[in-house]
This record gives sequence, structure tokens and C-alpha cells, in this order.
Amino acid sequence: MSLKFTLLATDGGARRGMVETAHGTFQTPAFMAVGTAATVKALTMDMVAATGTEVILGNTYHLMMRPGGDLVEKMGGLHKFSGWHGPILTDSGGFQVMSLSNLVKMREDGVEFTSHIDGGVKHFLRPEDSVHIQHQLDSNITMALDECLHLPAPRERVEKNVDMVARWARRSRDAFIDRSGYGIFGIVQGADFPDLRKKSAKQLTDIGFDGYAVGGLAVGEPQEVMFDMIAITTPLLPTDKPRYLMGVGTPLDILGAVERGIDMFDCVMPTRAGRTAQAFTRLGTLNMKNARFRDDASPIDDKCGCPACKLSRAYIHHLIKCNEILGATLLTQHNLWFYQDLMRDIRLSIETGCFAQFKQDFIAKYTGEE
Amino acid sequence: MSLKFTLLATDGGARRGMVETAHGTFQTPAFMAVGTAATVKALTMDMVAATGTEVILGNTYHLMMRPGGDLVEKMGGLHKFSGWHGPILTDSGGFQVMSLSNLVKMREDGVEFTSHIDGGVKHFLRPEDSVHIQHQLDSNITMALDECLHLPAPRERVEKNVDMVARWARRSRDAFIDRSGYGIFGIVQGADFPDLRKKSAKQLTDIGFDGYAVGGLAVGEPQEVMFDMIAITTPLLPTDKPRYLMGVGTPLDILGAVERGIDMFDCVMPTRAGRTAQAFTRLGTLNMKNARFRDDASPIDDKCGCPACKLSRAYIHHLIKCNEILGATLLTQHNLWFYQDLMRDIRLSIETGCFAQFKQDFIAKYTGEE
Repeated sequence: MSLKFTLLATDGGARRGMVETAHGTFQTPAFMAVGTAATVKALTMDMVAATGTEVILGNTYHLMMRPGGDLVEKMGGLHKFSGWHGPILTDSGGFQVMSLSNLVKMREDGVEFTSHIDGGVKHFLRPEDSVHIQHQLDSNITMALDECLHLPAPRERVEKNVDMVARWARRSRDAFIDRSGYGIFGIVQGADFPDLRKKSAKQLTDIGFDGYAVGGLAVGEPQEVMFDMIAITTPLLPTDKPRYLMGVGTPLDILGAVERGIDMFDCVMPTRAGRTAQAFTRLGTLNMKNARFRDDASPIDDKCGCPACKLSRAYIHHLIKCNEILGATLLTQHNLWFYQDLMRDIRLSIETGCFAQFKQDFIAKYTGEE
Repeated sequence: MSLKFTLLATDGGARRGMVETAHGTFQTPAFMAVGTAATVKALTMDMVAATGTEVILGNTYHLMMRPGGDLVEKMGGLHKFSGWHGPILTDSGGFQVMSLSNLVKMREDGVEFTSHIDGGVKHFLRPEDSVHIQHQLDSNITMALDECLHLPAPRERVEKNVDMVARWARRSRDAFIDRSGYGIFGIVQGADFPDLRKKSAKQLTDIGFDGYAVGGLAVGEPQEVMFDMIAITTPLLPTDKPRYLMGVGTPLDILGAVERGIDMFDCVMPTRAGRTAQAFTRLGTLNMKNARFRDDASPIDDKCGCPACKLSRAYIHHLIKCNEILGATLLTQHNLWFYQDLMRDIRLSIETGCFAQFKQDFIAKYTGEE
């Protein structure tokens, strides 16, 4: 294993670090833009890079369906195929198999499913298959295949889940081919049972990974439960490896998770919001469809340096009303820019030992409770 | 009137020139990207500029409907509103009134119509209204309101049309406010009747404009008829004013029209094609949906320097198959890049006295008859 993580500073539980990969370095806490099907929806890769994004996430489920691991490998891997030449993390496909496909059967060996994309052909995904596809994609960070439960779940079901996740993590780790600048992360499960979270963390750290994800959260539980599970898990993880909270989240989720020792995030929120007329600002979110923006000459957020914020809210509103593609493009880039500005501010505040103050100020403005 | 046109070189009938406006200069022969609703569909204005586009066209009909002339004026004009800071030409709205709206009545005074966009409200557009809206848009080149007939049309109808177009052109010219770096063009009509084309050209040059458009072509007639009408018209127009062939066309249309003395073009073809998976190349067009591109590692056109051509046909095909917005964006930019490469090559070939040879070589490759 040879993904290099350097912890540069800490401030309370918050950590400031960097991860070095074969395709360059990214600074942590990091927000990974979601590039589902080898594209961050509605943006060119140059536009993604301009936001300050340093690492993107590819979805193994979508890519194995279209265009397929073999094709991406033949085209020289995901970096060359998509034109994103920086670090790439891929998920295992497990989450989408369970949320998007028609799950046929979960077995000890792997998961059997069908998908609407290819007209209901039966697929079988074992931990070894997932790792193999991620090799084909040339992913810098491979995720071990896990099973993500819906919450709430009965304790007995979660106990079984945790043990199978550990066995699958072992098999994923064994299937992973060590290469310089590439690594594999294990995923801690355990739902909202503190003792099972602890058990899962122990099982995974015993195997040993380049980094650890906290999975199975942000699936409907209250924010406090999520924060509690993170706070229970991170102290059990090695300090010299990055920690990744999967699929999270809102700016406030991210601030709370950084405070509890998380280094990496991904979420469709900024990009999906950009395609549904929602704009993030330092004073909260705006629905750009709203008629009050029709003649508003001010930018979406006057603190933002993105291309959309060189234009007026009136123009963005006009594009949305006319269903112009550019509306989705400009808002997506703006939202990702906003997230990356937040991450930059978080990193600086940790470096300067001011994270708690920054968090308090940000939340006060963002929630309007200043 | 103060739009400065400089004729730099000629080669047979082909002309190489430049037009200076209050928002910068553009080189001719020029292809104007169509920016219907204050956006060149699927592209940011930076992406448009990167293609070599120097002037864009705004559609008065669309803009008067959404967001309205008053709003654009309040926002500081179309340049500031859209973020395109180079030259802008706007059409008069007449073409779309006749092709897109429910035309209620054509009168000497103007045209009455309803539109689906605002739920069937009755609008009345006189030549003076069209010029006023184009003033509100801060358009560098205003087009006089005309009436564009469908071809074929009976001679008696065309005779009436030509005379009314001349009266409307006079009224448009009178309503136009002279400003440094702004101008107004008249539009020659006359369908496919040579004598009526000549009459129309005479009527318009007697009024005197900053430039002259050849209108009412590329509306279904054979290419040879279009070329004949251009060849009849351009010798009757002053050499020291630019000539604009509206709504044209394919690369071969453009080559034939340049040969006959046309300086400016606009067409939705490259941008619309980009949203329907069509790619222009030096060897003809490609349908990127075609399964033969699934594993094609070569670029769309290996002579093209656009961002899409740094990626593979396989990637573009993948984006199209997945209905990803980026597919439309990359193909639109590629097609516009292709058109602007063609215009650059045309300009260079005129400067060097090699236009005829260039045209022959281009057509041989493009049509595969090499």
C-alpha cells in the first residue's frame, strides 16, 4: 500500500492534511466532486478544476454498466477517458446496487442484481469483481465492497452486516494490487449501534487499509445520530490514515464532521442542486426560479469569485426560466465553487487554530441567526 | 451612421475585411454564433470566445418575450446581461414572428401576433418597435424589420413584399439613433425573382445603410437558386459596406456565398447539431450516437484544437448515450470551433489569393470526392 497521507496540523478534533497519489496531491479536509459517469454533470473538467476541486469520485456501478470496465481500461483508464488528470476515488458499486438496481440476492459470495440500464441482464458483483473493475478504471483510491443498510435496522441484521462487511473487506484487500500512488479504503459500518461501530472499526483496522470510510450514515437518521456515530468511530481509527465520510453532505454536516476528525467528503448536493435551480450562498440557499430574482442585478453571492457571480441573479433566473443548459452549468459550477471555498476556509481555520470560531461564524451567517 | 467597414483584400468575388464596433472589431468573412436567448446554447461565453467567435447574434423575438427589452435595458444591455463583451448583431424579430408565433395579421403599420411563451397575449411589432427594442438590447448592429416569405411565392405577392420591405426599411432607418460604433442594416428581399431582387437592392441602397443583408434565402430553395440570387444582388451593393447572408448555412453554402461576395453569416446549424449528436469534421459529418464510435480512441477530428478533440470519440459517444449535458456542450463547442476554423482558413486564403484552390480542396475532402 502506498498512498501517502501527511497530517499537517490539528485543531481540537479537526485535522489538516494532504494525500499524495500517482495523479497528484489533494489537500484535506477535501470535498470530492461527484463524477458519476466519467463526468461531473454539466461541467467540463476545466470548469471542475477552476472551482478548486482536487479530487473527483467516480461511481463504479454506473461505469460498469456504461461504458463498462473493459472499455475504460482499453481507453487508458478513467483519467485519460474523462480528461480529469488529478486524483480519482471510486466507490465500490455496493451503494448503488442497493439503492438503484433491482437487488436479486445478497449472498456471502457477493450480490446479485439486475439493472434497467441494460434491460434486466443479471449481474453478480463479488468484492473481487468490484476491486478488479476499480483497477480497470485506474482509480487512485479503491473502496472495498460493503453492504449499506437502510436505517433504522434491527440489531441482529446489523450484527450480521458488520461481520460480512469485515469478511468482504478482507477479500477486497486481498484482491487489491499494491501500486505506488494507489490505495484501498475499508468502510466502517454498524448503523446507529455504538458497540457495533466500534467492532467494525476494530475489524477493519486489524486488516489494515490506506484509509477508512465511515459508511451507512446520512441515510435518513437525525444529524445528531450521525455526529455521534462519527465521534465514536474516529478515535478508533489510526491518526496517520485519512478518514472519509461517504455521501455527506450539507455545509453544516461537513463542519460537524470535520470537528469530529473527518478528512474527506463527497456528495451530489452541490451538483444536483445546480441542475434544479438551487444556489448555495454564504447567507443560505436561494431558489433561482423565484420571481423576485427577475430584475435583481446583484450576483448570487457577492463573496464568490466564480463565473456565474460575474453575472446577475436576473441573468441566471432568465436562463432557468428558459430551460437553458447554461443555467445548470453556471449554477453547478457556482455551487461546487462555494463548497470548495468552504473547504479552503476550513483548512485555513485549522492551520491557524481558529476552526471553532470559523464554524460558529459560518453557521451564524448561513442560518441567518447572526 | 458610424460602423466602420474596411475592405482589406479581394480574391475574385471573395472579400476579406473587418468591421469595427463600439464593442470591438470582427474579421470578415465572419460566422456569427447564434445566441438566441442571451446564451449560445450549452456554452459559456468564455467557451464561445475560445472557438474564435468574434460576434454573436441575438434574437429580438426571443428576447422581447423573455426577459423583455425593458429588463435587458435595465440590466445594462445585452453585453452586460449575458457577459458577452464583443460585438452583437440582433435580428429584427420579423423572421421568428413569421416562423414561430401565431401570426394574427400583417398590416402596413406592422405585424400583429400571439406567442405561446406568454400564453397568447396579443403583440404588435412595428419597424419602430423592433428598432427600439434593439436599442434597448444595446445591439451593435440593428436589423431593419422585414417580412420574410416562404418560397416558392407568387410573383404578385413578392412584388408587394418588396415594396413594403422598402417602406419598413425607411421607417426603421428613421427610427434608428446614430451612435458611434453602432449601425443598422437593410435587408434585400425579392424571393427568386432576379428583377425583384434588383429592385429591392436599389430601394435599400437609395435609403442608405451601414450594411446590407440578403434575406429570404435558405428557406427551402435549391442551393443553386440561392447562389444565383446572391450573385445577382451583391454587385448592386456598395463595396464599402458589409453584406450579410441571413441564416446560412452549411460549410458548402458558406464557401459558395463567400465566392459571390458575402461577408457575414449566421446559422443555428453548428450549435443545434451539437445538441443532437452531430459532429462536423474536415471529412464530413459524424453521428456520434453511432455504435461504431463506442471504442474509437481517436478524436472527432484530428485537425481540430478544441477541448472535445483532446478526448476520444469513445468518450463523446459515452456521454451522448448517457444523455449527459457535457456531451451537448463539448459537441456544440467543437462544431462552432470547426466553423470558425473554416472562416479563418477562408480569410487566409483570400489574403493569399488562394480562395478558389482552398474551396476546391475543402469540398473534395468534405464530400469525400477527393
